[in-house]
Amino acid sequence: MNDLPIYLDCNATTPIDPLVALAMQPWLGKHFGNPSSSHPYGKEAKAAVETARAEVAALIGGRPRDMIFCGSATEANNLAIFGVARALRGNRRHLVTSAIEHPSVMQPMRWLEAEGWELTVLPVDGTGRVRMEATAQAIRRDTALVSVMLANNETGAMQPVSEIAALAHVHGALMHVDAAQAAGKIPIDVHDLGTDLLTLAGHKFHAPKGVGALYVRAGTPILPIMAGANHERGLRPGTENVPHIVALGTAARLAQERLVREATRLHALRDALHERLVIAIPGLLLNGHPTERLPNTLNLSFPGVAGWQLLAATPEIAASTGSACHAGGQTVSDVLAAMSVSREQALGALRLSLGRFTTEAEINGAANALINAWRDLTSTAGR
Amino acid sequence: MNDLPIYLDCNATTPIDPLVALAMQPWLGKHFGNPSSSHPYGKEAKAAVETARAEVAALIGGRPRDMIFCGSATEANNLAIFGVARALRGNRRHLVTSAIEHPSVMQPMRWLEAEGWELTVLPVDGTGRVRMEATAQAIRRDTALVSVMLANNETGAMQPVSEIAALAHVHGALMHVDAAQAAGKIPIDVHDLGTDLLTLAGHKFHAPKGVGALYVRAGTPILPIMAGANHERGLRPGTENVPHIVALGTAARLAQERLVREATRLHALRDALHERLVIAIPGLLLNGHPTERLPNTLNLSFPGVAGWQLLAATPEIAASTGSACHAGGQTVSDVLAAMSVSREQALGALRLSLGRFTTEAEINGAANALINAWRDLTSTAGR
Repeated sequence: MNDLPIYLDCNATTPIDPLVALAMQPWLGKHFGNPSSSHPYGKEAKAAVETARAEVAALIGGRPRDMIFCGSATEANNLAIFGVARALRGNRRHLVTSAIEHPSVMQPMRWLEAEGWELTVLPVDGTGRVRMEATAQAIRRDTALVSVMLANNETGAMQPVSEIAALAHVHGALMHVDAAQAAGKIPIDVHDLGTDLLTLAGHKFHAPKGVGALYVRAGTPILPIMAGANHERGLRPGTENVPHIVALGTAARLAQERLVREATRLHALRDALHERLVIAIPGLLLNGHPTERLPNTLNLSFPGVAGWQLLAATPEIAASTGSACHAGGQTVSDVLAAMSVSREQALGALRLSLGRFTTEAEINGAANALINAWRDLTSTAGR
Repeated sequence: MNDLPIYLDCNATTPIDPLVALAMQPWLGKHFGNPSSSHPYGKEAKAAVETARAEVAALIGGRPRDMIFCGSATEANNLAIFGVARALRGNRRHLVTSAIEHPSVMQPMRWLEAEGWELTVLPVDGTGRVRMEATAQAIRRDTALVSVMLANNETGAMQPVSEIAALAHVHGALMHVDAAQAAGKIPIDVHDLGTDLLTLAGHKFHAPKGVGALYVRAGTPILPIMAGANHERGLRPGTENVPHIVALGTAARLAQERLVREATRLHALRDALHERLVIAIPGLLLNGHPTERLPNTLNLSFPGVAGWQLLAATPEIAASTGSACHAGGQTVSDVLAAMSVSREQALGALRLSLGRFTTEAEINGAANALINAWRDLTSTAGR
């Protein structure tokens, strides 16, 4: 990576795996056909899309025909929520989501609320997990859809999704899981989760930005949100992005092959980083659940400094104070606010997220940089 | 292309220009950042997106800030139509489109019609051009949006868009132009056209599938159709597809640089093919306007055979009987039907569409193959 800083922002986006980039090349070159064409250029593109569909389905234990390719996880979340709401409009009128969802789940829910749907937003506890007692009270016989993420993008906190799905199904509601941040990092099986819909984001597991997928269990009532020709079982019109779909398939296969080994490796690296910082920085706090957490994610609040100050003082590191998808100001993260984290603790938060290409040397370098910068900043501040 | 047939289906999709594929590589490799990130990985990605935005804007004479990147032209068309309808709902209630639009324009119009909007579908003449007298009668003071394509995908017929836009504006209606098939093939200036919205499709001018753009003139009332974080001026949420956006920018720049020279070359090649076929095949008919037509498009009806029979008999050629976006059956093309072409003529239609990498040798090979196959088929049939 030479001139570029140590990359610890894999929850914002991941480097494309060189094997994924390699797999894309034929589809950026000689094999450029439109999968809808009936000549050989089209047929080979169609076959590549279907191979990728099987690879992506295998990552989550789904059937290939239940996978709908989209332009992003944002689109997949919009399709799941608006698509189900359109299909069930008139029959049911209530929606449930959690306080820590990504904007591409929360904002569609808010739009539907503005259109007349009733919305319940589930609270989370201090570790960033959805409260089950509140969930049990929220889901009703007129609930159309419950949408809760599998793991949070800021804290990595894993959510009790299978329990929530079971509650949803007791009341005849559908379950959607935004697994954008979890897929490729922990094992996922849609049948074990008991979910009807599940969102994947390519660029969170070493495929390029610009491709996602929505798992739609057979028989799930859902309508498309865009209109056009009949691609993707009539649920998502538009000529298929063949190179990115091939990339998503390859990335899914690689993630599946390496899942256990890589999760173990990241878990150890992440905890080593945490341990070095805890020892050196008194008062350092972990945001998120201590164990029910993605193996790559470390959200820490540094005492006596703001997260952005610490980042500014460590140009050797690329990390973030919140979610890159909606970065910008120095406002407190909605996720940390929902966890009832104090304002000071929330402003001191830094998210360090590891990935497949993170090395032990980088972790050591990052720990040194953070410790030194924190000491400089806090001694300047008169501690 | 060695083992693959001569590619004469550039209106379905084009080969990616090797220079475009090359320009993408850094963004599939070391430079993978999320444009929303504030560290160097993010900043360089953001800068690349903005460079591309300027390149795409330059192709159509727009301002960079008026370009919204989308996942496809289908999405851009949906955003234009549903986005304007959402913004003007309650103020105006009438929509106008033409009988020869792509499904990604016609289907959104039909959805809105089902929701209570009134829809007028403009007829075309025998050359496939929208009838101006009908247009003048159709547009009213309660018309919200008029959407007419710049050039038809099946016949290449160019539409009187600037005249239609002027009529729309007289009544205070907005104008949308689907330029998916025209961009990169003929000069486009949004100010000359007088359009408020204009759709581009990357894969029709040698960029990859999976990226498009919508030009939205400043001040145009429009709302997003998907909800999420505030990307693309709040009009299109989802992490930017950096490699494909860079590709679209590069493809736009290459198209602009070569536009006049390449249009002249394709025009000559296309007409040479037409001439050889006309001389050899008595009764051969041109579908579409003889002169007001994209320089690369040749839609011909072969006497005494069906288009699919001729294609099946010429495996040396990749072409299509209709639009690849909605291929499949042996039904008559909606576009040819709207032109009042006879059923026999419509079934005998073949679309031959050329591109940047089409050579004179390929045109000669294609002419020979088509002439021989037509002679075989019609002599077998007893002519």
